[in-house]
Amino acid sequence: MKSPNRKQNRKRVSSKLGMSPGTLLHIGEQKTDPPLICIINYDSDTHVAKQYTNSDKPSPIRYKEGITWINIDGLHQIDLIEHIGNEFGISRLTLEDILNTNQRPKLDAHENYVYLVVKMLHYPEDSPDLEVEQVSFLLGKDFVISFQESPGDTFNSVRHRLQQSSNSIRTRKADYLLYALLDTIVDNYFVIIEHLSDKTENLEERLLHQVSDDLLNEIYQLRKEISNIRRSIYPLREVIAALDRNDSHIMSSDTKWYIRDVYDHTIQVIDQVENFREAITTMIDLYMSGISNRMNNIMKVLTVISTIFIPLTFIVGLYGMNFDNMPELHWHYGYFIIWGIMITMGLSMFAYFRRKKWF
Amino acid sequence: MKSPNRKQNRKRVSSKLGMSPGTLLHIGEQKTDPPLICIINYDSDTHVAKQYTNSDKPSPIRYKEGITWINIDGLHQIDLIEHIGNEFGISRLTLEDILNTNQRPKLDAHENYVYLVVKMLHYPEDSPDLEVEQVSFLLGKDFVISFQESPGDTFNSVRHRLQQSSNSIRTRKADYLLYALLDTIVDNYFVIIEHLSDKTENLEERLLHQVSDDLLNEIYQLRKEISNIRRSIYPLREVIAALDRNDSHIMSSDTKWYIRDVYDHTIQVIDQVENFREAITTMIDLYMSGISNRMNNIMKVLTVISTIFIPLTFIVGLYGMNFDNMPELHWHYGYFIIWGIMITMGLSMFAYFRRKKWF
Amino acid sequence: MKSPNRKQNRKRVSSKLGMSPGTLLHIGEQKTDPPLICIINYDSDTHVAKQYTNSDKPSPIRYKEGITWINIDGLHQIDLIEHIGNEFGISRLTLEDILNTNQRPKLDAHENYVYLVVKMLHYPEDSPDLEVEQVSFLLGKDFVISFQESPGDTFNSVRHRLQQSSNSIRTRKADYLLYALLDTIVDNYFVIIEHLSDKTENLEERLLHQVSDDLLNEIYQLRKEISNIRRSIYPLREVIAALDRNDSHIMSSDTKWYIRDVYDHTIQVIDQVENFREAITTMIDLYMSGISNRMNNIMKVLTVISTIFIPLTFIVGLYGMNFDNMPELHWHYGYFIIWGIMITMGLSMFAYFRRKKWF
Amino acid sequence: MKSPNRKQNRKRVSSKLGMSPGTLLHIGEQKTDPPLICIINYDSDTHVAKQYTNSDKPSPIRYKEGITWINIDGLHQIDLIEHIGNEFGISRLTLEDILNTNQRPKLDAHENYVYLVVKMLHYPEDSPDLEVEQVSFLLGKDFVISFQESPGDTFNSVRHRLQQSSNSIRTRKADYLLYALLDTIVDNYFVIIEHLSDKTENLEERLLHQVSDDLLNEIYQLRKEISNIRRSIYPLREVIAALDRNDSHIMSSDTKWYIRDVYDHTIQVIDQVENFREAITTMIDLYMSGISNRMNNIMKVLTVISTIFIPLTFIVGLYGMNFDNMPELHWHYGYFIIWGIMITMGLSMFAYFRRKKWF
Amino acid sequence: MKSPNRKQNRKRVSSKLGMSPGTLLHIGEQKTDPPLICIINYDSDTHVAKQYTNSDKPSPIRYKEGITWINIDGLHQIDLIEHIGNEFGISRLTLEDILNTNQRPKLDAHENYVYLVVKMLHYPEDSPDLEVEQVSFLLGKDFVISFQESPGDTFNSVRHRLQQSSNSIRTRKADYLLYALLDTIVDNYFVIIEHLSDKTENLEERLLHQVSDDLLNEIYQLRKEISNIRRSIYPLREVIAALDRNDSHIMSSDTKWYIRDVYDHTIQVIDQVENFREAITTMIDLYMSGISNRMNNIMKVLTVISTIFIPLTFIVGLYGMNFDNMPELHWHYGYFIIWGIMITMGLSMFAYFRRKKWF
Repeated sequence: MKSPNRKQNRKRVSSKLGMSPGTLLHIGEQKTDPPLICIINYDSDTHVAKQYTNSDKPSPIRYKEGITWINIDGLHQIDLIEHIGNEFGISRLTLEDILNTNQRPKLDAHENYVYLVVKMLHYPEDSPDLEVEQVSFLLGKDFVISFQESPGDTFNSVRHRLQQSSNSIRTRKADYLLYALLDTIVDNYFVIIEHLSDKTENLEERLLHQVSDDLLNEIYQLRKEISNIRRSIYPLREVIAALDRNDSHIMSSDTKWYIRDVYDHTIQVIDQVENFREAITTMIDLYMSGISNRMNNIMKVLTVISTIFIPLTFIVGLYGMNFDNMPELHWHYGYFIIWGIMITMGLSMFAYFRRKKWF
Repeated sequence: MKSPNRKQNRKRVSSKLGMSPGTLLHIGEQKTDPPLICIINYDSDTHVAKQYTNSDKPSPIRYKEGITWINIDGLHQIDLIEHIGNEFGISRLTLEDILNTNQRPKLDAHENYVYLVVKMLHYPEDSPDLEVEQVSFLLGKDFVISFQESPGDTFNSVRHRLQQSSNSIRTRKADYLLYALLDTIVDNYFVIIEHLSDKTENLEERLLHQVSDDLLNEIYQLRKEISNIRRSIYPLREVIAALDRNDSHIMSSDTKWYIRDVYDHTIQVIDQVENFREAITTMIDLYMSGISNRMNNIMKVLTVISTIFIPLTFIVGLYGMNFDNMPELHWHYGYFIIWGIMITMGLSMFAYFRRKKWF
Repeated sequence: MKSPNRKQNRKRVSSKLGMSPGTLLHIGEQKTDPPLICIINYDSDTHVAKQYTNSDKPSPIRYKEGITWINIDGLHQIDLIEHIGNEFGISRLTLEDILNTNQRPKLDAHENYVYLVVKMLHYPEDSPDLEVEQVSFLLGKDFVISFQESPGDTFNSVRHRLQQSSNSIRTRKADYLLYALLDTIVDNYFVIIEHLSDKTENLEERLLHQVSDDLLNEIYQLRKEISNIRRSIYPLREVIAALDRNDSHIMSSDTKWYIRDVYDHTIQVIDQVENFREAITTMIDLYMSGISNRMNNIMKVLTVISTIFIPLTFIVGLYGMNFDNMPELHWHYGYFIIWGIMITMGLSMFAYFRRKKWF
Repeated sequence: MKSPNRKQNRKRVSSKLGMSPGTLLHIGEQKTDPPLICIINYDSDTHVAKQYTNSDKPSPIRYKEGITWINIDGLHQIDLIEHIGNEFGISRLTLEDILNTNQRPKLDAHENYVYLVVKMLHYPEDSPDLEVEQVSFLLGKDFVISFQESPGDTFNSVRHRLQQSSNSIRTRKADYLLYALLDTIVDNYFVIIEHLSDKTENLEERLLHQVSDDLLNEIYQLRKEISNIRRSIYPLREVIAALDRNDSHIMSSDTKWYIRDVYDHTIQVIDQVENFREAITTMIDLYMSGISNRMNNIMKVLTVISTIFIPLTFIVGLYGMNFDNMPELHWHYGYFIIWGIMITMGLSMFAYFRRKKWF
Repeated sequence: MKSPNRKQNRKRVSSKLGMSPGTLLHIGEQKTDPPLICIINYDSDTHVAKQYTNSDKPSPIRYKEGITWINIDGLHQIDLIEHIGNEFGISRLTLEDILNTNQRPKLDAHENYVYLVVKMLHYPEDSPDLEVEQVSFLLGKDFVISFQESPGDTFNSVRHRLQQSSNSIRTRKADYLLYALLDTIVDNYFVIIEHLSDKTENLEERLLHQVSDDLLNEIYQLRKEISNIRRSIYPLREVIAALDRNDSHIMSSDTKWYIRDVYDHTIQVIDQVENFREAITTMIDLYMSGISNRMNNIMKVLTVISTIFIPLTFIVGLYGMNFDNMPELHWHYGYFIIWGIMITMGLSMFAYFRRKKWF
C-alpha cells in the first residue's frame, strides 16, 4: 500500500509542479478502464436509473425535478467531469481536488454545494494488502454526485433501497441520500475491523507457541495496516463532525440526527482501532520478553552443562598427569574412588541447580 | 471479554449492513431468555410495583400521575420495546441504539426525553473474566425507563428505598430516580476496583519471589482488564458531565448537585484506575529488570566456574604431555607442588571474585 | 500508604453501597480517639479561644460578632458535625463529603459558603511512609470551619498569630484566615519536598557505587511516593485556582492577591515534583545501563580467560596423545619449545585484548 | 546542516549582542556573491521584466500601475534592502528580520503590508545533506517582494506563467502572485518527501538483510533530517493558516480559497512526514530486535557446541587417567565401546536440540 | 546547580514557615556583599548616573522628570528595598517576591506598575556548572527598577547606549528601556546555547569512538542542564507573551512590536533547546545500542574460539586415552593424519564463520 502511494506522489510532483491552478489533471493510479456513469433520478413516485459507459454521452444530466444521484466510477475521463462540473456549478478547484486521489478526508462547504472527500478501505480478492480508495461527494439541494476510483458493489444496497417505492429514502431529500451513502462506507470499516480482529487473534495465538523473526515482521505489518486505518478514520470522523456542524440550508436538522449516528459509528471504529494498537504494543512487549526468556533458557542449559562438567574434566585431567610420584594412581581402588567423588559432585551440583529452579 | 465483543461486531456487519435506518434489530449477544419487565409507579403517597415476564402484556405502561420507572431485563423482545417507544414518544433512532449493545457510553438530549447509555461491569460467578453490560436510560418529565441486557440485583437497593414511604426518593422527581440508579452503577465500579486491587497486590507479592513467564502473562491480562475499565469509565464521566451541563427542564438544578457528587465518584474511580496502570507499568519494569538480573546471575556462575577451572585444567593437561624430557615430572614432590600451585590459584581467583561481589 | 487507602475503599463499598444520599457516615480510618474542638472568635479588639474534647458540648458555636474559626480534629463524632452543619446552614451533601476521607481535592461554591477539600502530607514519627491527611474547610462570610482527621500542630503558627492583637490577620476577614491556613498547608509541602530531596540525593549517590536489586526497589518506592504527591498537589493547584476565580462576595479581591501567592507556591512545588520525576527516570535508566555494563564486564572476563586458555589447553592435550610416532615428543628441548610457544600465544592474546581495551 | 546553523548562532551572538534594535546587519552565511535583483511589473496587458546585478542601481523600483514583483537573491547588500524598505514603507524591525536568516517561519501583519518568513528545503547537487533556505515575502496592495538567500530556479515556473498574457495570474492581484509563489515552495516539499521515501525504502530493504552499526547511524541520520523537515513544515502550516485567517484588505476572499488549497498540501506533507517518523521508529525497533536475535543465534551455536562436546571431552579425559587399576582399559573392545557411547550421546543431544528447534 | 537550590528550599522552610505575609525576609543565597545601587535618570537631553554602595544613602531616589532606572545588585539590604518600595508605591507582597529568589518567572500587573521575574543563566568563570540568577523588574510610567542577585556586566551595553544622546533609547519611554533590558537577557541565552552546542558536538564525536560509563554520566549531566534551561525559558516565554497581551497604559503599542521581537527570540531559544533534547535522546539510544553491539562482539569472539577449539580438544583428548587396544595409535602416520583432520576441521569452521560474517 505504501509503494503506490509513493509513486503517486512522484507522479504528482513531476506532472503538476508549477502548473496553473485550475488545470484539470487526474493524479493517481488509473484503476479502471472505461469509466461507468450511473444516473438515478427519483422522488417518492418515480425512479429512473440509467447507466452509461465511456462511449455514451449521458443526457440529460440534470433533471428539473426530484433528486438526482450521479455515481461515477473512474476518474480519468476529464471532459466528462468538467461537463458535470459546469452543469452543476462546481468550482474548478473542487474539480481538481476530485481528480487528485491523494487528498486527505476533508469537507469544503461552498455556497451552493458541499464537497466531501472520504477514504474507503477494502481487501482486494487477489491480494492480502489493504487497499484505499478515495470517494468524493458533491451534495447540492437536489443532487448527490459521487466519484469512485474503481467500480465496486459498496453502494448496491442503497441502489436497492431506492428501487423500493415504500422505502423512507424515497420520501426524503438529497442530504438523506448522502447520509445513506456515508453510512454504507462507515459500515464497511467494520468489515475491515473484523478482518484485523482475526489477524490479531491469530498472531496472539501463535505468539504463545513460538518466538520467531517472521512473527515480528507480521506484527509490524499489522501495525502498519492499523496505522493506515487510523489515518483514514480520524479525518473521516472530523469530516462527519463538520457535516453535523455545517449550517448551510442544504443539510436539514432532521438528517443531522442521522449524521450523528454515523458519527457514533466512526467513534466505535476508532475505539476498536485503538484496541488493536494496544494489543499490538502488548504483542511486541511479549515478543521482546519472549526473546529474553529464550536467551535465559539457552544460557541456563550452557551454564548447567559447563558448571557440572568443567570441574569433572579438571579431575580426570588431574589423574592424566605423568608425574613419577602420584600415590593415588597406585591405590587399588583409586579409579573407583575418583568415580565416586565425581558422581557425588555431579549429582550435588545437579541438585543445587534443581533447587534454584534452573531447569 | 474480547472474543464475544468481536463476535458481536461480526453479527453487526452481516445483519445490519445496508439496512434502512429505523429497522429495529437486536445487535449483540442474547443474554437472558424471557425478558423481565418491572414497572413501579410512585409518588410520596402511593407505590405500585408490577412484574411481567415475556408472555404477559404489561398494562398500563404509562400512568397519568406520579413517577413511573420501567426496568426491562433482556433486549430481544423487539415488539415490546417498540410498544414502549410509541407510548413515550421515543424516536426510532434511539430505540435502535438501545437495541445495539455495542454502543459507547453517550448522552443524547431530545426535546422531551434524555437518552443515556452507560456500561456496568461485573465479575460473573462462574468465570474470572470481567463482563461488561450495557445499561440504557430514558429520562422524561415523569418517567425513567432502564434497559439491561440481563437480570441482575444491582438496582435492588433502589427498589427497596422506593418501598419506604419516608425515603427522600419518594418525594422527588424522575431526575432524582435517575441519579439514584446512576449512583448505584458508579458505586459498582468500586467493587471492581477492590477486586483489581487484590489482584494487583497478589501479583506484586509474587513478583518479589519469582520471575516466570506465567506471571508476565497475568500482568498483561490485568492490564487488559484495566484498559477495558478505562474505556468504560472515561466516557461515563463525560456522560455524567453532560448530564450536569444539560439545561433541559427535565433536570432540576437541585438534582444536579447530586449528579456532581456522582461525577466526583467517577473521578475517584479514574484516579484509582490510573494508579493501577502505573502499578502495572512498574511491575512490567520490575519483571524486565528481574529477567536481566537473573541472566546476570547465571552468567556470573558460569564465569566464576569457567574462570577458576579453565586455567587449572590447562595445568593438569600440561603435565599430561608425553615429552621425553620434562624435568618436573621426575621431581619427587612435583605432584604435590602442582597441587599447591593450583589450590593457590583457585583460592586467589575465588577471593578476587568475592571482593568484586560476584557472589 | 497504598494499603490503608485500599482498605478504606473496601470499607466504603461495604458500608455505603445503596444507601440514601444524605445519610451521614464516617468513611475512612478513625485516626484519633476523642475528637478535639477548638473555637476561636476574634476581631481586631477581642480574641476568645476555647477548647473542647469529646465529652463537652461546645457552646456557643456561632458568635454574633467577629470572625469565628472552628477547628475539629477527628471526624467520627457525627452528631457534633451534624450540629455544626445545622448551625451554619451547611447542606447534607457537603457534610457527607467532609466525613468521607477518600475525597479528591476540590472546591464547591455554595450560595452562602465555600467548601474546600485539600490533602496534607506528613511523615509520621514512627514510620518511613508518607501519610496523607484530608483537611476540609468551610468558608462563610464570618466563619471558617476546618476539619482534620487527627490532631496536629500544623495550624499552631496561625493560632499564635491570632493571639497577637497587632497582627494583620486580626484586622481582616474570614477569607484572609482561610488564606493563612491554606498557606500553612502548602508550606508544609516544602518540608516533604526537602525530605524527598534528601532521599533522592542518597539514592543517586548509592547508584554510583553499586547496582543492586534493593536499590531498584527503593527507586520504585520513591517513584510511588512522588506520584502520590503529584496526585495531591495537582488538584490542590486547581482548588486554589478555583478559589481565585470564584466570584462570590465571600472572597474579597484583596485576599485574592494573597491566594495568587499561594498558587505560585503550589506551582513551585509542582516544579520540584516534576524535577524528582525526571531524576527518577534518569536513575532507572542509569540502573538499567549499569546492569548492562556489569553483564558486559562479566562476559569480558569470561571471554578473555576462555580465549587465552582454550587454545593452550588444546596444545597440551595435543602432546598428551599416545601415538607411537610423535617426533616432537622425543626432541630434547620439545617441552621447553612448547612452553615458549604457549607463552608467546598467551601474551599476544593478552596484548590484543589490552589494545581492544577489554580490560 | 547542524553545524552551519550553530555557527550562525555564534555569529549572531558575537555581532548583535547589545546593539540597538533597528541596526541593519546581515546575520547568517553569505551564500551568493553578487545579489541578483529581478523586477517584474505586469497587469493583464503589459509585462516588463528587468534584471540587475550588484553594480547596477535598479530604477524605477516602484511602479505607479500594475503589480510589481521584486525578487532579491542574496541578503548581504544592506543598502539596497534599506532603499527598498524606504520606498515601500517597510518598518526597520521587519527589515532586520529579513536580514536574519535564523528566523522561524512566521507571519506579521502590518497596516499596509504582510510579512511572511518561510523555509525552503533542497538537496544541493554536490552534497547529500538537506539544505534549508529562508525565503521572506512582503505582500502589499500592489507589490510582492521576495528575498532568497541564494539564486535558484524555484520561481521560474511562476516567471514563465507571468509571461503568458492569457494566464489567469496576469488578471489577478498581488495576493494571487503570493499564493503562486507559496504554492511553488510547498510543492517543493513533495520533492524532498520523494527523496526521503527512496531513502526510507532503501534502508528498510537493507535492514531485512543485515544488522550493522552503520545502518543504525544512517537511520538516525534520516531521523534527524525528518525532524528538520518537521521543524520547517509545522510552522509553515501555521503561517499559511494565519494568512487564511488574516482579515486585512490585502488578501481577497477569492485568493483565500487558493490559500486553503496550499494549506491542504502542507497537511499532506505533514502526514507523510509523520509516516516517515513512524517508519523510522519501526526500523529502530526492528534493528534492536535484530541485534537481540543475532545474539540469540550466537548463543545457540555456542551452547550447542559446548553442550555436545564438554561431556565427550570429559569421557576421553576419563580414559586418559593413569590409574594402575582401570579394568575398562584392558578390555579388548573397550575403545570401540567408548566410541559407541560417545556417538550415541552426541547424536541424542543433537536430536534434542533439533527437536527444541535450536538450529 | 541542584544542591544550592535544595538548600535554599531548606532555608525557606525553616525561616519562613508560618510567618505573617508581608514580613520582608531575603530567601536564597547571599551572593554579593555590599549591595550596589546604580541610579540613572535621563531624557532626550539630560543623562545623570550615580552609583552608591551599602554605606551611602541614595538620594534622590525618585526624580520629578525624565525616566529613572534604578539597578540594585544584591538583595540582602532589606531596609533599602523597603525604602524604594515606599517611594514608588510597591505593594509589600511584591517586595516579598523580589526578595525570594526561588520564584518562577512570572508577571504580575498592578494598577500603577508591572512586576516581572525572569531567570538569567550564566557559566561562572571558576566552575563548569550553569548558574541561575533571578532578575526582577518593576516597570512604572516613568521608572524601571531592576534587582539582580549579584553584580554583573550584562546590562553594560544598555548603560552605554543610554550615554549616547543620539541613541533612540533616550527619546523613548520606560517601557522601551524594559524591552532593552529583557532583550539583553534573552540574547544571553544564545551564549548558553552556544556553550551547550559545543558540549553536545563534543559528546557526539566521542560517542562514535568509545562507549564508556563516564560518557553516559556526561550525557545525563548535559540532559540535566538542558532541562534546567527549559524550566527557565518556557516560563520566560509566557512572561513575555503576558507583557505583550498586557493592556495597561504603561506599555505603549509601539514598544509591543519590539516585545514581540524578543518573543520570537525566546521561541528560537526553545527550538534550539528542543533540538538538544532530541540530540540527547539519540545519543542515549546510540549508547545503548553501542553497549549491545559490544556485547555481541564479545560473544562472537568467545563463540568462534570455543567452537573451533572445543571439538579439537576433544580429538586430542581422544588419543590421550590409555586403552590397550587403540589401533590408530600404532599407525605410522597416525599422528600426522590427526593433524590433517584437525587443520581441515579448524579451517572449515573458520570459513563457515567468515561466510556468516561473524568477524
